[in-house]
Amino acid sequence: MPTSPIRRLTPFAEAAKRQGKTIYHLNIGQPDIPPPQVALDAIRDLRIVSLEYTHSAGNETYRRKLAEYYKRYDINVDYSDILITTGASEAILFSFSSCLNYGDEVISPEPCYANYNAFASFTGNVIIPLTSKIENDFALPPVYEIEEKLTPKTKGIILCNPNNPTGYAYTKRELLQIRDIVKEYDLFLFSDEAYREFCYDGIEPISAMHLKGIEENVVMIDSVSKRFSECGVRIGSIVTKNKEVIQTALKYGQARLSPPGLGQIVGEASIDTPEEYYMDVIMEYTKRRDYIVKALNNIPGVYCPEPKGAFYCMVKLPVDDTDKFAQWLLEEFDHNNQTVMIAPGSGFYTSPGLGKDQARLAYVLNVEKLAKSVEVLAEALKVYPGRTL
Amino acid sequence: MPTSPIRRLTPFAEAAKRQGKTIYHLNIGQPDIPPPQVALDAIRDLRIVSLEYTHSAGNETYRRKLAEYYKRYDINVDYSDILITTGASEAILFSFSSCLNYGDEVISPEPCYANYNAFASFTGNVIIPLTSKIENDFALPPVYEIEEKLTPKTKGIILCNPNNPTGYAYTKRELLQIRDIVKEYDLFLFSDEAYREFCYDGIEPISAMHLKGIEENVVMIDSVSKRFSECGVRIGSIVTKNKEVIQTALKYGQARLSPPGLGQIVGEASIDTPEEYYMDVIMEYTKRRDYIVKALNNIPGVYCPEPKGAFYCMVKLPVDDTDKFAQWLLEEFDHNNQTVMIAPGSGFYTSPGLGKDQARLAYVLNVEKLAKSVEVLAEALKVYPGRTL
Repeated sequence: MPTSPIRRLTPFAEAAKRQGKTIYHLNIGQPDIPPPQVALDAIRDLRIVSLEYTHSAGNETYRRKLAEYYKRYDINVDYSDILITTGASEAILFSFSSCLNYGDEVISPEPCYANYNAFASFTGNVIIPLTSKIENDFALPPVYEIEEKLTPKTKGIILCNPNNPTGYAYTKRELLQIRDIVKEYDLFLFSDEAYREFCYDGIEPISAMHLKGIEENVVMIDSVSKRFSECGVRIGSIVTKNKEVIQTALKYGQARLSPPGLGQIVGEASIDTPEEYYMDVIMEYTKRRDYIVKALNNIPGVYCPEPKGAFYCMVKLPVDDTDKFAQWLLEEFDHNNQTVMIAPGSGFYTSPGLGKDQARLAYVLNVEKLAKSVEVLAEALKVYPGRTL
Repeated sequence: MPTSPIRRLTPFAEAAKRQGKTIYHLNIGQPDIPPPQVALDAIRDLRIVSLEYTHSAGNETYRRKLAEYYKRYDINVDYSDILITTGASEAILFSFSSCLNYGDEVISPEPCYANYNAFASFTGNVIIPLTSKIENDFALPPVYEIEEKLTPKTKGIILCNPNNPTGYAYTKRELLQIRDIVKEYDLFLFSDEAYREFCYDGIEPISAMHLKGIEENVVMIDSVSKRFSECGVRIGSIVTKNKEVIQTALKYGQARLSPPGLGQIVGEASIDTPEEYYMDVIMEYTKRRDYIVKALNNIPGVYCPEPKGAFYCMVKLPVDDTDKFAQWLLEEFDHNNQTVMIAPGSGFYTSPGLGKDQARLAYVLNVEKLAKSVEVLAEALKVYPGRTL
């Protein structure tokens, strides 16, 4: 298993820290927003006397509350359509292992969440990249391009919506195109909706579970990590109307016995998060997005499309290679003893050679810190030896 | 993935419960002993304001404390030799995926923990059974039998010590035999030591990490689940001196981001469990073992070797098929409206047809309940239509 381009930078970041540099971490999707108070209270009020295995599919009380939560988004599922997993990570792993055979292919728009490849390699499957372009704001490529990717081994499409790393929110029209292909070729549609709530400019999140006629094909992947800033509790879910898939996934779930018990308590409590929490979070991220996109586009040679969801932007930088640039930022550069850590674009592309002029920036810092980060980045681009402008 | 013989019984157990029957659960290794007070206090005293990802290898503070814990057992490891996992389940999965290629074979004494097969099927590997016999108390089969199992695809041996499901504690002599084979054929030795503390009759636990000359071959798998009755927190570990293995395992760890954060806090606090806790637990299990083994052997036609470790016994029953018998116990039998749930032996054997006259009983109930369970079992064996006595 190769080291991801992001992880490769960790030792350089550690060295920079030892040198006393301040690093602005734009490289990871670790939100700085606190979890909802109801979740923190649930931990504080815990009076536990035993720490037993839970049901392999997760606590029934949690699954029932989760079904209520989904109803708010017009996703009508029963608790028995839900399997609680150890983060979205395990949800992806179990979805692949439950739906695919060894060697089967899954088409994914790229750039995409790097770990889809990691989990596919675990299950002996292959992610087939479908390149979306920064010039088109990373919109879904035309249908004929998707159809060109189909082979007898194609068994599914995986879509992250809103998208990590691009921040793109797929439109109704695009999702209907995907629906038609899924239906025509009887594919699975793995729909990673971990960023559901993070939609800006009044856009309503569209779930793959809303798409008519492919109810048996859709396997939704979800997580509390981003929604409630609860990355550390490792709680996700698989949601599907396909009984065979959920039953097979449960067998994998039984092999690992149960998802984390304490995390499920946090997840269940979080369903009662008041509406204001979500609104505050969206306001905050909108403010940050507005700030960073404008500031980035003001740097000569930089292009940043405006993301409509999640909390990432994929940005084009006037450099030879963002892998080298990211390392150089940590190893050799500082501006008033500050630097930034960015996620090189290549890590999000499966096609070799792509993404070398791109980087993913997570706006998980407040505007003040984002301002400093962009200032540092602008100064760095003036002096980086591999600049192309 | 086939349903395990144990899980297959769940609907029958649920139906029996609905009928109002009291079921004594001897079928699962869910200890009834409370977790140590220090662990419960750690949860109670938590004043958490964020729930971030931890390090993919686990919190450094926890790994350092865990290294101290291992030193008490003469296992001399650095914190960097340790990767915290989501239960022993994930430790097995990552160990296989880090050490083996697709199709590689791993020899395991059988009966064995059923999930070794499940995880091997996940990673595209094959468990090759090495049958140990109830007449020999499930001792390690002779060396020539192990050597007969070796093929060019053999890459490892997996040993659970003390053993689930047999309760057998491998002797120094047996472990040296294993050491010699591992060394001669350059195999990995996956050593599942989740039951380390559960050794009776003054036996000292022997770790694979104690074996000289195969330091690079040993991959120890561990868990807090049984040791501290913390099954639900899902915290385990991989421990190895083999830097390449731990680095590869870390890459899998990075793909799933981090192990559960709250569980790590519980695990770390548990290292400070006072010595008396372990002593009380061992006294309690010894009492139970002494009771159940004697009581079982008093039932006509039943044979139960005396386990030296863990909290299971593998028992021979005078019935046609323990799968059928276990189902019949739930579906058709009751003694004063009580019945028992047992784990059919076949689920612990990879070789087809074996274990049909055996069952695993977990003595995770107090002596009073064990007495009732054995009484129920004895009555059942008098009337079961498929009895062979």
